[in-house]
Amino acid sequence: MKRILLCVAYDGTNYSGWQLQDNAPTIEGELNKALSDLHGEEIAVIGASRTDAGVHALCNMAVYDTDARMPAEKVSFALNTVLPEDIKVVWSREVAPDFHPRHTNTVKTYEYTIYNEPIMPPTERLYAYHVKDKLDVAIMEKEAKCLVGEHDFKSFASVYTTAETTVRTITDIDVRREGSYVKITVSGTGFLYNMVRIIAGTLIDVGLGRRAEGFTKAALDALDRRSAGPTAPARGLMLIKYEFLDQCF
Amino acid sequence: MKRILLCVAYDGTNYSGWQLQDNAPTIEGELNKALSDLHGEEIAVIGASRTDAGVHALCNMAVYDTDARMPAEKVSFALNTVLPEDIKVVWSREVAPDFHPRHTNTVKTYEYTIYNEPIMPPTERLYAYHVKDKLDVAIMEKEAKCLVGEHDFKSFASVYTTAETTVRTITDIDVRREGSYVKITVSGTGFLYNMVRIIAGTLIDVGLGRRAEGFTKAALDALDRRSAGPTAPARGLMLIKYEFLDQCF
Repeated sequence: MKRILLCVAYDGTNYSGWQLQDNAPTIEGELNKALSDLHGEEIAVIGASRTDAGVHALCNMAVYDTDARMPAEKVSFALNTVLPEDIKVVWSREVAPDFHPRHTNTVKTYEYTIYNEPIMPPTERLYAYHVKDKLDVAIMEKEAKCLVGEHDFKSFASVYTTAETTVRTITDIDVRREGSYVKITVSGTGFLYNMVRIIAGTLIDVGLGRRAEGFTKAALDALDRRSAGPTAPARGLMLIKYEFLDQCF
Repeated sequence: MKRILLCVAYDGTNYSGWQLQDNAPTIEGELNKALSDLHGEEIAVIGASRTDAGVHALCNMAVYDTDARMPAEKVSFALNTVLPEDIKVVWSREVAPDFHPRHTNTVKTYEYTIYNEPIMPPTERLYAYHVKDKLDVAIMEKEAKCLVGEHDFKSFASVYTTAETTVRTITDIDVRREGSYVKITVSGTGFLYNMVRIIAGTLIDVGLGRRAEGFTKAALDALDRRSAGPTAPARGLMLIKYEFLDQCF
Protein backbone atom coordinates (compact mmCIF):
# COMPACT_ATOMS: atom_id res chain seq x y z
CA MET A 1 0.00 0.00 0.00
CA LYS A 2 1.40 3.39 -0.93
CA ARG A 3 0.12 6.96 -0.49
CA ILE A 4 0.16 9.24 -3.51
CA LEU A 5 -0.03 13.05 -3.44
CA LEU A 6 -1.66 14.90 -6.34
CA CYS A 7 -1.39 18.58 -7.32
CA VAL A 8 -4.73 19.34 -8.97
CA ALA A 9 -5.59 22.35 -11.19
CA TYR A 10 -9.19 23.06 -12.11
CA ASP A 11 -11.68 25.48 -13.57
CA GLY A 12 -14.34 25.63 -10.86
CA THR A 13 -17.02 27.19 -13.10
CA ASN A 14 -19.00 24.01 -13.68
CA TYR A 15 -18.56 22.41 -10.23
CA SER A 16 -20.31 22.73 -6.89
CA GLY A 17 -16.92 23.15 -5.23
CA TRP A 18 -14.34 20.60 -4.11
CA GLN A 19 -16.25 18.56 -1.57
CA LEU A 20 -18.14 15.39 -2.54
CA GLN A 21 -21.92 15.79 -2.92
CA ASP A 22 -24.54 13.24 -3.83
CA ASN A 23 -26.35 15.10 -6.57
CA ALA A 24 -23.90 17.68 -7.92
CA PRO A 25 -20.58 17.48 -9.79
CA THR A 26 -17.57 18.26 -7.57
CA ILE A 27 -13.81 18.13 -8.03
CA GLU A 28 -13.47 15.45 -5.34
CA GLY A 29 -16.19 13.37 -6.99
CA GLU A 30 -14.52 13.55 -10.41
CA LEU A 31 -11.12 12.63 -8.92
CA ASN A 32 -12.59 9.64 -7.07
CA LYS A 33 -14.31 8.43 -10.23
CA ALA A 34 -11.21 8.84 -12.43
CA LEU A 35 -8.87 7.19 -9.87
CA SER A 36 -11.27 4.29 -9.31
CA ASP A 37 -11.47 3.79 -13.09
CA LEU A 38 -7.70 4.02 -13.44
CA HIS A 39 -6.70 1.64 -10.65
CA GLY A 40 -9.71 -0.70 -10.85
CA GLU A 41 -10.46 -0.34 -7.13
CA GLU A 42 -12.70 1.97 -5.09
CA ILE A 43 -10.65 5.09 -4.26
CA ALA A 44 -11.56 8.11 -2.13
CA VAL A 45 -9.11 11.02 -1.98
CA ILE A 46 -8.41 13.17 1.08
CA GLY A 47 -8.35 16.79 -0.08
CA ALA A 48 -6.36 19.66 1.39
CA SER A 49 -8.66 22.65 0.76
CA ARG A 50 -12.42 22.50 0.24
CA THR A 51 -12.77 25.32 -2.25
CA ASP A 52 -16.27 26.78 -2.84
CA ALA A 53 -18.43 26.45 -5.92
CA GLY A 54 -16.95 28.50 -8.77
CA VAL A 55 -13.49 28.91 -7.18
CA HIS A 56 -10.53 27.87 -9.35
CA ALA A 57 -7.16 26.30 -8.53
CA LEU A 58 -3.72 26.10 -10.07
CA CYS A 59 -2.69 23.62 -7.38
CA ASN A 60 -4.96 22.13 -4.75
CA MET A 61 -3.70 18.96 -3.05
CA ALA A 62 -5.11 15.51 -2.43
CA VAL A 63 -3.76 12.13 -1.28
CA TYR A 64 -5.06 8.59 -1.74
CA ASP A 65 -3.87 5.06 -0.98
CA THR A 66 -3.50 2.29 -3.51
CA ASP A 67 -1.92 -1.11 -4.05
CA ALA A 68 -1.57 -0.41 -7.75
CA ARG A 69 1.87 -1.00 -9.22
CA MET A 70 1.80 2.07 -11.50
CA PRO A 71 4.76 4.33 -10.57
CA ALA A 72 3.45 7.34 -8.61
CA GLU A 73 4.97 9.82 -11.08
CA LYS A 74 3.01 8.28 -13.98
CA VAL A 75 -0.38 8.65 -12.30
CA SER A 76 -0.78 12.29 -13.38
CA PHE A 77 -0.43 11.46 -17.09
CA ALA A 78 -2.78 8.49 -16.86
CA LEU A 79 -5.37 10.45 -14.87
CA ASN A 80 -5.39 13.32 -17.35
CA THR A 81 -6.57 10.96 -20.07
CA VAL A 82 -9.63 10.06 -17.94
CA LEU A 83 -10.50 13.38 -16.22
CA PRO A 84 -12.81 15.98 -17.78
CA GLU A 85 -10.98 18.79 -19.59
CA ASP A 86 -11.59 21.31 -16.78
CA ILE A 87 -9.61 19.27 -14.21
CA LYS A 88 -5.91 18.49 -14.67
CA VAL A 89 -3.41 16.76 -12.41
CA VAL A 90 -0.20 18.82 -12.62
CA TRP A 91 2.01 16.23 -10.92
CA SER A 92 1.82 13.12 -8.71
CA ARG A 93 4.36 11.63 -6.29
CA GLU A 94 4.61 9.10 -3.48
CA VAL A 95 4.61 10.43 0.11
CA ALA A 96 4.97 8.81 3.53
CA PRO A 97 1.98 6.58 4.46
CA ASP A 98 1.08 8.88 7.37
CA PHE A 99 1.25 12.12 5.38
CA HIS A 100 -2.06 13.97 5.73
CA PRO A 101 -2.57 17.18 3.74
CA ARG A 102 -4.76 18.82 6.40
CA HIS A 103 -2.61 17.82 9.39
CA THR A 104 0.63 19.19 7.98
CA ASN A 105 1.99 22.72 8.30
CA THR A 106 1.25 24.58 5.10
CA VAL A 107 1.26 28.02 3.55
CA LYS A 108 -1.52 28.48 1.02
CA THR A 109 -1.68 31.37 -1.43
CA TYR A 110 -4.91 32.63 -2.97
CA GLU A 111 -5.23 35.26 -5.70
CA TYR A 112 -8.34 37.38 -6.13
CA THR A 113 -8.68 38.93 -9.61
CA ILE A 114 -10.68 42.10 -10.27
CA TYR A 115 -11.25 43.46 -13.78
CA ASN A 116 -11.17 47.21 -13.18
CA GLU A 117 -12.40 48.94 -16.35
CA PRO A 118 -15.81 50.41 -17.27
CA ILE A 119 -16.56 47.49 -19.62
CA MET A 120 -15.36 43.89 -19.10
CA PRO A 121 -14.81 41.70 -22.19
CA PRO A 122 -16.97 38.54 -21.94
CA THR A 123 -13.82 36.38 -22.17
CA GLU A 124 -12.91 37.57 -18.63
CA ARG A 125 -16.25 36.88 -16.97
CA LEU A 126 -15.53 33.40 -15.58
CA TYR A 127 -12.21 34.29 -13.93
CA ALA A 128 -12.54 37.87 -12.68
CA TYR A 129 -14.93 40.08 -10.72
CA HIS A 130 -15.92 43.19 -12.64
CA VAL A 131 -15.52 46.48 -10.75
CA LYS A 132 -16.35 49.39 -13.10
CA ASP A 133 -15.16 52.33 -11.04
CA LYS A 134 -11.45 52.95 -10.59
CA LEU A 135 -10.03 51.34 -7.45
CA ASP A 136 -7.52 53.20 -5.28
CA VAL A 137 -4.90 50.46 -5.09
CA ALA A 138 -2.56 52.39 -2.77
CA ILE A 139 -5.21 52.66 -0.07
CA MET A 140 -6.24 49.00 -0.54
CA GLU A 141 -2.62 47.91 -0.11
CA LYS A 142 -2.29 50.02 3.05
CA GLU A 143 -5.53 48.66 4.53
CA ALA A 144 -4.56 45.09 3.66
CA LYS A 145 -1.32 45.25 5.64
CA CYS A 146 -3.20 45.47 8.97
CA LEU A 147 -4.46 41.92 8.37
CA VAL A 148 -0.96 40.41 8.24
CA GLY A 149 -0.06 38.35 11.32
CA GLU A 150 -1.96 36.15 13.77
CA HIS A 151 -5.43 37.57 14.47
CA ASP A 152 -8.93 36.51 15.33
CA PHE A 153 -10.56 36.75 11.89
CA LYS A 154 -14.13 36.26 13.14
CA SER A 155 -15.28 39.33 11.17
CA PHE A 156 -13.86 37.78 8.00
CA ALA A 157 -15.54 34.39 8.28
CA SER A 158 -18.94 33.33 6.99
CA VAL A 159 -21.48 33.14 9.80
CA TYR A 160 -21.88 29.52 8.67
CA THR A 161 -18.31 28.63 9.60
CA THR A 162 -17.99 25.55 11.78
CA ALA A 163 -14.34 26.14 12.76
CA GLU A 164 -13.48 25.66 16.46
CA THR A 165 -11.39 28.81 16.54
CA THR A 166 -11.39 31.81 14.22
CA VAL A 167 -7.75 32.67 14.95
CA ARG A 168 -5.63 32.36 11.80
CA THR A 169 -2.27 33.64 10.54
CA ILE A 170 -1.88 35.62 7.33
CA THR A 171 1.78 35.65 6.32
CA ASP A 172 1.48 38.17 3.47
CA ILE A 173 -1.02 40.26 1.52
CA ASP A 174 -0.24 42.14 -1.65
CA VAL A 175 -2.53 44.39 -3.73
CA ARG A 176 -1.36 45.55 -7.15
CA ARG A 177 -2.58 46.83 -10.51
CA GLU A 178 -1.59 44.80 -13.58
CA GLY A 179 -2.92 46.52 -16.69
CA SER A 180 -6.73 46.31 -16.57
CA TYR A 181 -6.63 44.05 -13.49
CA VAL A 182 -6.28 44.61 -9.78
CA LYS A 183 -4.96 41.50 -8.02
CA ILE A 184 -5.08 40.70 -4.32
CA THR A 185 -2.70 37.94 -3.24
CA VAL A 186 -3.15 36.49 0.25
CA SER A 187 -0.85 33.87 1.83
CA GLY A 188 -1.55 32.20 5.16
CA THR A 189 -1.26 29.02 7.18
CA GLY A 190 -5.01 28.50 7.13
CA PHE A 191 -8.22 30.22 6.09
CA LEU A 192 -11.78 30.35 7.38
CA TYR A 193 -14.86 29.71 5.24
CA ASN A 194 -15.18 32.65 2.75
CA MET A 195 -12.26 34.46 4.42
CA VAL A 196 -10.37 35.54 1.27
CA ARG A 197 -13.61 36.57 -0.48
CA ILE A 198 -14.65 38.72 2.51
CA ILE A 199 -11.16 40.29 2.64
CA ALA A 200 -11.49 41.07 -1.09
CA GLY A 201 -15.00 42.50 -0.65
CA THR A 202 -13.81 44.68 2.23
CA LEU A 203 -10.74 46.00 0.38
CA ILE A 204 -12.87 46.72 -2.71
CA ASP A 205 -15.31 48.78 -0.61
CA VAL A 206 -12.42 50.86 0.74
CA GLY A 207 -10.78 51.08 -2.72
CA LEU A 208 -14.04 52.52 -4.12
CA GLY A 209 -14.31 55.08 -1.30
CA ARG A 210 -17.52 53.46 0.01
CA ARG A 211 -15.71 53.07 3.32
CA ALA A 212 -13.16 55.37 4.93
CA GLU A 213 -9.52 54.56 5.60
CA GLY A 214 -9.23 52.45 8.75
CA PHE A 215 -12.39 50.43 7.97
CA THR A 216 -10.47 47.16 7.59
CA LYS A 217 -8.68 47.44 10.95
CA ALA A 218 -11.94 48.46 12.67
CA ALA A 219 -13.67 45.44 11.10
CA LEU A 220 -10.90 43.13 12.33
CA ASP A 221 -11.20 44.51 15.88
CA ALA A 222 -15.01 44.26 15.96
CA LEU A 223 -15.05 40.42 15.81
CA ASP A 224 -18.40 40.61 14.03
CA ARG A 225 -19.09 39.53 10.43
CA ARG A 226 -21.44 42.51 9.96
CA SER A 227 -18.60 44.97 10.48
CA ALA A 228 -16.65 43.79 7.39
CA GLY A 229 -17.48 44.24 3.69
CA PRO A 230 -19.46 41.92 1.41
CA THR A 231 -18.29 38.49 0.22
CA ALA A 232 -16.78 39.04 -3.24
CA PRO A 233 -17.95 36.57 -5.95
CA ALA A 234 -16.31 33.12 -6.11
CA ARG A 235 -15.31 33.37 -9.77
CA GLY A 236 -12.53 35.91 -9.00
CA LEU A 237 -10.81 33.53 -6.57
CA MET A 238 -8.03 31.07 -7.41
CA LEU A 239 -5.93 28.88 -5.10
CA ILE A 240 -2.53 29.42 -6.73
CA LYS A 241 0.09 27.85 -4.44
CA TYR A 242 0.35 25.20 -1.78
CA GLU A 243 3.53 24.84 0.26
CA PHE A 244 4.02 22.06 2.79
CA LEU A 245 6.48 23.15 5.48
CA ASP A 246 8.96 20.75 7.11
CA GLN A 247 8.58 18.31 4.23
CA CYS A 248 11.29 17.33 1.81
CA PHE A 249 9.71 15.74 -1.24
CA MET B 1 -33.92 56.53 -40.26
CA LYS B 2 -30.47 56.46 -38.70
CA ARG B 3 -27.53 54.03 -38.93
CA ILE B 4 -25.93 52.89 -35.70
CA LEU B 5 -22.46 51.35 -35.37
CA LEU B 6 -21.79 48.82 -32.59
CA CYS B 7 -18.45 47.63 -31.17
CA VAL B 8 -19.17 44.07 -30.03
CA ALA B 9 -17.05 41.94 -27.65
CA TYR B 10 -17.77 38.24 -27.28
CA ASP B 11 -16.61 34.89 -25.99
CA GLY B 12 -16.91 32.70 -29.07
CA THR B 13 -16.77 29.40 -27.15
CA ASN B 14 -20.49 28.64 -27.28
CA TYR B 15 -21.23 30.04 -30.76
CA SER B 16 -20.99 28.68 -34.29
CA GLY B 17 -19.17 31.86 -35.29
CA TRP B 18 -20.45 35.30 -36.25
CA GLN B 19 -22.57 34.56 -39.30
CA LEU B 20 -26.30 33.85 -39.02
CA GLN B 21 -27.28 30.16 -39.26
CA ASP B 22 -30.68 28.55 -39.12
CA ASN B 23 -30.03 25.89 -36.49
CA ALA B 24 -27.05 27.06 -34.47
CA PRO B 25 -26.41 29.98 -32.11
CA THR B 26 -24.30 32.75 -33.68
CA ILE B 27 -23.22 36.23 -32.61
CA GLU B 28 -25.13 37.82 -35.51
CA GLY B 29 -28.25 35.86 -34.59
CA GLU B 30 -28.10 36.95 -30.94
CA LEU B 31 -27.55 40.59 -31.91
CA ASN B 32 -30.50 40.54 -34.33
CA LYS B 33 -32.72 39.00 -31.66
CA ALA B 34 -31.67 41.48 -28.94
CA LEU B 35 -31.97 44.53 -31.24
CA SER B 36 -35.38 43.44 -32.53
CA ASP B 37 -36.56 43.00 -28.91
CA LEU B 38 -35.10 46.35 -27.91
CA HIS B 39 -36.49 48.44 -30.75
CA GLY B 40 -39.70 46.48 -31.33
CA GLU B 41 -39.00 46.11 -35.06
CA GLU B 42 -37.29 43.45 -37.17
CA ILE B 43 -33.57 44.30 -37.29
CA ALA B 44 -30.72 42.62 -39.17
CA VAL B 45 -27.18 43.84 -38.56
CA ILE B 46 -24.44 44.07 -41.18
CA GLY B 47 -21.25 42.69 -39.62
CA ALA B 48 -17.68 43.67 -40.40
CA SER B 49 -15.80 40.39 -39.83
CA ARG B 50 -17.30 36.91 -39.97
CA THR B 51 -15.24 35.27 -37.26
CA ASP B 52 -15.17 31.44 -37.10
CA ALA B 53 -16.74 29.19 -34.49
CA GLY B 54 -14.80 29.49 -31.22
CA VAL B 55 -12.99 32.72 -32.16
CA HIS B 56 -13.31 35.58 -29.65
CA ALA B 57 -13.48 39.37 -30.07
CA LEU B 58 -12.76 42.44 -28.00
CA CYS B 59 -14.24 44.60 -30.76
CA ASN B 60 -15.96 43.35 -33.88
CA MET B 61 -18.16 45.86 -35.70
CA ALA B 62 -21.75 45.88 -36.96
CA VAL B 63 -24.22 48.47 -38.22
CA TYR B 64 -28.00 48.51 -38.41
CA ASP B 65 -30.74 50.97 -39.35
CA THR B 66 -33.60 52.02 -37.13
CA ASP B 67 -36.30 54.64 -36.75
CA ALA B 68 -36.16 54.27 -32.97
CA ARG B 69 -35.78 57.52 -31.03
CA MET B 70 -33.35 56.08 -28.45
CA PRO B 71 -30.08 58.10 -28.60
CA ALA B 72 -27.42 56.02 -30.39
CA GLU B 73 -25.03 56.25 -27.43
CA LYS B 74 -27.61 54.66 -25.10
CA VAL B 75 -28.13 51.58 -27.28
CA SER B 76 -25.08 49.77 -25.85
CA PHE B 77 -26.35 49.96 -22.25
CA ALA B 78 -29.86 48.89 -23.22
CA LEU B 79 -28.61 46.02 -25.39
CA ASN B 80 -26.37 44.66 -22.64
CA THR B 81 -29.41 44.11 -20.43
CA VAL B 82 -30.92 41.85 -23.14
CA LEU B 83 -27.87 40.06 -24.59
CA PRO B 84 -26.51 36.80 -23.15
CA GLU B 85 -23.59 37.26 -20.75
CA ASP B 86 -21.00 36.10 -23.31
CA ILE B 87 -21.77 38.98 -25.73
CA LYS B 88 -21.31 42.62 -24.75
CA VAL B 89 -21.68 45.83 -26.73
CA VAL B 90 -18.72 48.03 -25.75
CA TRP B 91 -20.09 51.21 -27.36
CA SER B 92 -22.64 52.40 -29.90
CA ARG B 93 -22.74 55.57 -32.00
CA GLU B 94 -24.53 57.05 -35.01
CA VAL B 95 -22.71 56.98 -38.37
CA ALA B 96 -23.49 58.31 -41.84
CA PRO B 97 -26.42 56.47 -43.51
CA ASP B 98 -24.12 55.15 -46.25
CA PHE B 99 -21.39 53.90 -43.88
CA HIS B 100 -20.75 50.20 -44.58
CA PRO B 101 -18.27 48.36 -42.34
CA ARG B 102 -17.07 46.06 -45.13
CA HIS B 103 -16.76 48.75 -47.81
CA THR B 104 -14.62 51.09 -45.72
CA ASN B 105 -10.84 51.10 -45.40
CA THR B 106 -9.91 49.37 -42.19
CA VAL B 107 -6.99 47.96 -40.27
CA LYS B 108 -7.94 44.92 -38.19
CA THR B 109 -5.72 43.44 -35.50
CA TYR B 110 -5.91 39.81 -34.38
CA GLU B 111 -4.05 38.26 -31.48
CA TYR B 112 -3.21 34.56 -31.34
CA THR B 113 -2.48 33.28 -27.81
CA ILE B 114 -0.34 30.21 -27.13
CA TYR B 115 0.14 28.78 -23.63
CA ASN B 116 3.74 27.57 -23.76
CA GLU B 117 4.39 25.43 -20.67
CA PRO B 118 4.43 21.64 -20.18
CA ILE B 119 1.07 21.73 -18.34
CA MET B 120 -1.76 24.20 -19.07
CA PRO B 121 -4.12 25.14 -16.20
CA PRO B 122 -7.74 24.30 -17.16
CA THR B 123 -8.71 27.97 -16.68
CA GLU B 124 -6.70 28.80 -19.84
CA ARG B 125 -8.18 26.16 -22.10
CA LEU B 126 -10.93 28.25 -23.76
CA TYR B 127 -8.70 31.18 -24.71
CA ALA B 128 -5.29 29.73 -25.57
CA TYR B 129 -3.72 26.95 -27.64
CA HIS B 130 -1.51 24.68 -25.56
CA VAL B 131 2.00 24.09 -26.96
CA LYS B 132 4.01 22.01 -24.48
CA ASP B 133 7.48 22.26 -25.97
CA LYS B 134 9.39 25.53 -25.69
CA LEU B 135 8.91 27.79 -28.71
CA ASP B 136 11.85 29.68 -30.21
CA VAL B 137 10.23 33.12 -30.26
CA ALA B 138 13.20 34.86 -31.91
CA ILE B 139 13.01 32.62 -34.98
CA MET B 140 9.19 32.95 -35.11
CA GLU B 141 9.50 36.74 -35.05
CA LYS B 142 12.09 36.66 -37.84
CA GLU B 143 9.97 34.31 -40.01
CA ALA B 144 6.84 36.42 -39.39
CA LYS B 145 8.42 39.58 -40.74
CA CYS B 146 8.56 38.16 -44.30
CA LEU B 147 4.74 38.20 -44.35
CA VAL B 148 4.50 41.97 -43.80
CA GLY B 149 3.42 43.91 -46.91
CA GLU B 150 1.15 43.22 -49.89
CA HIS B 151 1.39 39.59 -50.99
CA ASP B 152 -0.64 36.83 -52.55
CA PHE B 153 -1.53 34.84 -49.42
CA LYS B 154 -3.00 31.86 -51.32
CA SER B 155 -0.88 29.46 -49.22
CA PHE B 156 -2.35 30.96 -46.05
CA ALA B 157 -6.02 30.65 -47.00
CA SER B 158 -8.37 27.76 -46.43
CA VAL B 159 -8.94 25.80 -49.64
CA TYR B 160 -12.63 26.60 -49.03
CA THR B 161 -12.07 30.34 -49.45
CA THR B 162 -14.45 32.02 -51.87
CA ALA B 163 -12.49 35.28 -52.15
CA GLU B 164 -12.03 36.68 -55.67
CA THR B 165 -8.39 37.48 -55.04
CA THR B 166 -6.00 36.14 -52.42
CA VAL B 167 -3.86 39.28 -52.40
CA ARG B 168 -3.94 40.97 -49.00
CA THR B 169 -1.82 43.48 -47.07
CA ILE B 170 -0.38 42.75 -43.62
CA THR B 171 0.72 45.99 -41.99
CA ASP B 172 2.46 44.48 -38.98
CA ILE B 173 3.24 41.18 -37.25
CA ASP B 174 4.70 40.86 -33.80
CA VAL B 175 5.65 37.68 -31.90
CA ARG B 176 6.55 37.95 -28.22
CA ARG B 177 6.77 35.97 -24.99
CA GLU B 178 4.70 37.26 -22.04
CA GLY B 179 5.32 35.02 -19.03
CA SER B 180 3.84 31.61 -19.82
CA TYR B 181 2.31 32.87 -23.07
CA VAL B 182 3.57 33.42 -26.59
CA LYS B 183 1.44 35.96 -28.43
CA ILE B 184 1.27 36.58 -32.17
CA THR B 185 -0.30 39.91 -33.14
CA VAL B 186 -1.21 40.43 -36.80
CA SER B 187 -2.58 43.68 -38.26
CA GLY B 188 -3.81 44.03 -41.82
CA THR B 189 -6.30 45.69 -44.14
CA GLY B 190 -8.08 42.40 -44.78
CA PHE B 191 -7.75 38.69 -44.09
CA LEU B 192 -8.64 35.50 -45.95
CA TYR B 193 -10.63 32.63 -44.43
CA ASN B 194 -8.44 30.99 -41.71
CA MET B 195 -5.48 33.23 -42.63
CA VAL B 196 -4.37 34.20 -39.12
CA ARG B 197 -4.81 30.65 -37.84
CA ILE B 198 -2.67 29.26 -40.70
CA ILE B 199 -0.01 31.92 -40.06
CA ALA B 200 -0.02 30.90 -36.37
CA GLY B 201 0.19 27.19 -37.22
CA THR B 202 3.10 27.83 -39.60
CA LEU B 203 5.05 29.97 -37.12
CA ILE B 204 4.48 27.39 -34.36
CA ASP B 205 5.90 24.64 -36.60
CA VAL B 206 9.03 26.72 -37.20
CA GLY B 207 9.22 27.74 -33.51
CA LEU B 208 9.20 24.06 -32.52
CA GLY B 209 11.94 23.21 -35.03
CA ARG B 210 9.58 20.97 -37.04
CA ARG B 211 10.38 23.18 -40.01
CA ALA B 212 13.65 24.89 -40.90
CA GLU B 213 14.25 28.63 -41.04
CA GLY B 214 12.92 30.01 -44.32
CA PHE B 215 9.86 27.75 -44.31
CA THR B 216 7.41 30.66 -43.99
CA LYS B 217 8.84 32.60 -46.95
CA ALA B 218 8.94 29.43 -49.06
CA ALA B 219 5.30 28.73 -48.17
CA LEU B 220 4.32 32.27 -49.18
CA ASP B 221 6.08 31.91 -52.54
CA ALA B 222 4.57 28.49 -53.30
CA LEU B 223 0.98 29.82 -53.61
CA ASP B 224 -0.29 26.44 -52.41
CA ARG B 225 -2.10 25.77 -49.11
CA ARG B 226 -0.23 22.46 -48.70
CA SER B 227 3.11 24.27 -48.46
CA ALA B 228 2.15 26.13 -45.23
CA GLY B 229 1.68 24.76 -41.71
CA PRO B 230 -1.52 23.51 -40.07
CA THR B 231 -4.50 25.69 -39.11
CA ALA B 232 -4.07 26.49 -35.39
CA PRO B 233 -7.20 25.99 -33.23
CA ALA B 234 -9.86 28.72 -33.18
CA ARG B 235 -9.91 29.15 -29.39
CA GLY B 236 -6.48 30.87 -29.40
CA LEU B 237 -7.70 33.61 -31.76
CA MET B 238 -9.18 36.97 -30.75
CA LEU B 239 -10.10 39.97 -32.90
CA ILE B 240 -8.73 42.73 -30.68
CA LYS B 241 -8.89 45.99 -32.67
CA TYR B 242 -10.81 47.51 -35.54
CA GLU B 243 -9.71 50.82 -37.04
CA PHE B 244 -11.69 52.58 -39.77
CA LEU B 245 -9.38 54.77 -41.84
CA ASP B 246 -10.50 58.13 -43.31
CA GLN B 247 -13.37 58.35 -40.83
CA CYS B 248 -13.77 60.92 -38.15
CA PHE B 249 -16.35 59.68 -35.66
